[in-house]
Amino acid sequence: MSETESPRPARGGRAARRAARSAGAALNGASHYGEAAWNFPTYEMGSDETLSRLEHNADSILETVGVDFHDSEAEREPGSPSPHELFRDAGCEIENTRVRFPRGLARKIIRDNAPAEFTHHARNPANSVVIGGRRTVFSPVYGPPFIRDLEGERRYAQLADFENLVKLIYMSPALHYSGGTVCEPTDIPVNKRHLDMVYAHARYSDKPFMGSVTHWSRARDSVAMAELLFGKDFVEQNTVLTALINVNSPLVYDATMLGALKVYAERGQGVQVAPFVLAGAMGPCTAAGCIAQILAEAMAGMSLCQLIRPGAPVIFGSFVSSMSMQSGAPTMGTPEPTLIMAHLAQLARRLGVPFRTGGALTASKLPDMQASYESAATLWVSVMSGINLLQHAAGWLEGGLSFSYEKLLMDCDQISGMHRLFRGLDMSENGQAMEVLLENPPGQHHLGTEHTQRNFKDAFWTSVLSDNNSFEQWSSEGSLDVTARANVLARRMLGEYEAPVLDGGVDESLRAFMDRRKSEMPDAWSA
Amino acid sequence: MSETESPRPARGGRAARRAARSAGAALNGASHYGEAAWNFPTYEMGSDETLSRLEHNADSILETVGVDFHDSEAEREPGSPSPHELFRDAGCEIENTRVRFPRGLARKIIRDNAPAEFTHHARNPANSVVIGGRRTVFSPVYGPPFIRDLEGERRYAQLADFENLVKLIYMSPALHYSGGTVCEPTDIPVNKRHLDMVYAHARYSDKPFMGSVTHWSRARDSVAMAELLFGKDFVEQNTVLTALINVNSPLVYDATMLGALKVYAERGQGVQVAPFVLAGAMGPCTAAGCIAQILAEAMAGMSLCQLIRPGAPVIFGSFVSSMSMQSGAPTMGTPEPTLIMAHLAQLARRLGVPFRTGGALTASKLPDMQASYESAATLWVSVMSGINLLQHAAGWLEGGLSFSYEKLLMDCDQISGMHRLFRGLDMSENGQAMEVLLENPPGQHHLGTEHTQRNFKDAFWTSVLSDNNSFEQWSSEGSLDVTARANVLARRMLGEYEAPVLDGGVDESLRAFMDRRKSEMPDAWSA
Repeated sequence: MSETESPRPARGGRAARRAARSAGAALNGASHYGEAAWNFPTYEMGSDETLSRLEHNADSILETVGVDFHDSEAEREPGSPSPHELFRDAGCEIENTRVRFPRGLARKIIRDNAPAEFTHHARNPANSVVIGGRRTVFSPVYGPPFIRDLEGERRYAQLADFENLVKLIYMSPALHYSGGTVCEPTDIPVNKRHLDMVYAHARYSDKPFMGSVTHWSRARDSVAMAELLFGKDFVEQNTVLTALINVNSPLVYDATMLGALKVYAERGQGVQVAPFVLAGAMGPCTAAGCIAQILAEAMAGMSLCQLIRPGAPVIFGSFVSSMSMQSGAPTMGTPEPTLIMAHLAQLARRLGVPFRTGGALTASKLPDMQASYESAATLWVSVMSGINLLQHAAGWLEGGLSFSYEKLLMDCDQISGMHRLFRGLDMSENGQAMEVLLENPPGQHHLGTEHTQRNFKDAFWTSVLSDNNSFEQWSSEGSLDVTARANVLARRMLGEYEAPVLDGGVDESLRAFMDRRKSEMPDAWSA
Repeated sequence: MSETESPRPARGGRAARRAARSAGAALNGASHYGEAAWNFPTYEMGSDETLSRLEHNADSILETVGVDFHDSEAEREPGSPSPHELFRDAGCEIENTRVRFPRGLARKIIRDNAPAEFTHHARNPANSVVIGGRRTVFSPVYGPPFIRDLEGERRYAQLADFENLVKLIYMSPALHYSGGTVCEPTDIPVNKRHLDMVYAHARYSDKPFMGSVTHWSRARDSVAMAELLFGKDFVEQNTVLTALINVNSPLVYDATMLGALKVYAERGQGVQVAPFVLAGAMGPCTAAGCIAQILAEAMAGMSLCQLIRPGAPVIFGSFVSSMSMQSGAPTMGTPEPTLIMAHLAQLARRLGVPFRTGGALTASKLPDMQASYESAATLWVSVMSGINLLQHAAGWLEGGLSFSYEKLLMDCDQISGMHRLFRGLDMSENGQAMEVLLENPPGQHHLGTEHTQRNFKDAFWTSVLSDNNSFEQWSSEGSLDVTARANVLARRMLGEYEAPVLDGGVDESLRAFMDRRKSEMPDAWSA
């Protein structure tokens, strides 16, 4: 199947359409609100002097300490290139697994080759997104093994939960991405669950999705399934998958991540190189120290992608958290990661690559005020600082260990407001409203003016979950908190879900591939 | 009493000290964390072209439509100046109550006279704050008639609630201000409650506080009590009160507000001129339209203050909300007010006066995820955009109709993180951490490094209310949400409260003044 043969644009169910209408957006065949372009300047927190110093420090780390790349035969695709040979040929100094970079080399390789932005294709072309430039792509939570379900029970997540999540994400126009491991389907063997996950994204959604990274062969399976979905030719020419490659900080690419990175980079699929830093453990306990390390780590991996395939789409990623001084537990939404994210966004812009960070992060075990205050801290700095891919933007709880349907919808509701915010200040003649401001006398309210009548319907973004009614009205409706309202909405949306059309032959081929691959492997229950 | 005779600096109870210590701040005799200076650039959302156009539009409103000043004999202090005479002498065109300004006049009067910043003195000199410049003053909720109390009941607030609130605010180092009408003590007659409110601020706190504005005589009483507290000479020479003067938008100063404005401006006390705009009702339903109107309204009032007393301290204030399209109810934390606040902050900087807006605003009836998501939206834009006085920063619920002790403490907890954020990125040698980054090998965690050991204790801001423990630990401690933890803390703080020392003679004179004034008036139960 090629792009022109892809199934007709499908829309995201009644609830999504309602949400979209209430936010004043036309879906135009897409299951999201459209591009979230930044119609105002990014917030530039760090001065040129500060940023130059941080770049200098990153170069010093790459030059003096270097980065370990663990390239193991068991963990790499047969015939895949050796990172050490590639780096040596580019001018690096190699010592066993260690790669040291002459000052400025990694930056130069990236600047000379990496695209500033690229299109991540969805099977519904209306849902394809551009990653990079002056726009944000919103993506759901990635990785939680647990779920807090609609009955309020916290338990291991299963494939049925995964499928439900994909459906809700499909129906949520605030999210561009269907995501990757939106939760771990723990009832499926570890070595087979990537097949079910890719299938669920392909079958129950038509938004862009991510491939598996837990073994090179699972990455290869992800690409193979994408070829069945998009057509082999199309996949050879286009980016239809991105993959989340975490650096094993400090300064280590482990063999598993390296094996997956190579599979995607060789095939021109999008590689998100994301150091995972809990400050004080995987990096120093100061913000400026973490920034230099993260920049060094990300440049090492992104330059490797360019050496593997010049022009391969890469994303500078970062997951960063501070730490509880009492317990050593990760803490979210705190000032130090905020500072780190804002400066890294600037450094990515200077480097000329898309940047991913952020999310609706929280350490709370429940969707309570802690959860949203912490989530908002990361979401807001992301929106102001200019983040191209906002991973974990919805659904995350408990430091990423669990997800919540209710929080998914509450996060989406906030993100929907951010879509509106990105439109910026309307300075059109109608927006300036001088016609009415110069006519309307003091003391005369604006409710009935012709200008208000003409604009009122679409004047303000409206939350689908917030209750703005009087206390009396709210009480008469049961005094529900927003989580209870989100629970009702999640149940209703799952009941109303309609799958996007998928060509029967494609569906059949995907299932056949899964069955064959599953039959080739004994079940494995550990990574 | 003069400044040098003021009582010895007092500290805010054990809980406050614990909170202060945990946030790594030394109180230095103050009951707050110290000045929240902006160690990073303000976010400049609007372009020069946009801002110039908005200023042009404001001037057009002032020139063409003008502003109504309702100056009534019953509502003004005998002998107070006529605004119309002052404006006429300054070059305005007067038509009955209406004042029309030649283009640029209001701006010129303000620029030529109004201070860019001023000190608002507290009776504890360590708690005095500078309003204006590159710093934020955090102030609690203002105005709610209802309380959601610690038993979870929502009822009319009483004087005992007012006193409890003042005590908790005093013990919350995140807040600089003791505030004004932190709630309405509805058990006290309307014409007498200002006396009890001023007394409570003076007696139970030593932070800066606000005067009454509901009648010129109550404003006069507020000043008289301040003279007893600070000494008459000191009050003549210094600003010891600010007052919240709401414009009766669109484009009207009513007689009550005007009467109070004049009392404070004549005496060099701080006047916050704050248009109160529910977009679509008290102003147009577009953001750019509201901005122009608010700027015009605020300039009219601030220029009057300067004509009354050149150099009188003024604050450009703004309360702005969008509207539910279903019910007409005010909505909080939405994109449109965010855009308005960010641009108004820039316009205030161009005008050269301190700016107040923002707060932890929400329409939610409960401290739930709606409450904190909406509150965070306003808090974050305030922090990034540069707001000098952040009114309503803690405790607000239900569109300002009620307050919550728990939300007060949860809001303060977040603001405490913002105090830390304002410090910005530490680019000292220690902050850059290159000594450890160049020594520590790949794969070796940073937990045990000498750099981490040296910095760990103060490395990260720590919430006093967030739970970052494991799910298992949290469950074993009762699975409490953050509101339940805040309830426990509020009860403990009220139990631990220790009043700051107040000179017995001063206390006696304040009580005697209250008694005398109360005896002079029959009880009145409406405004």
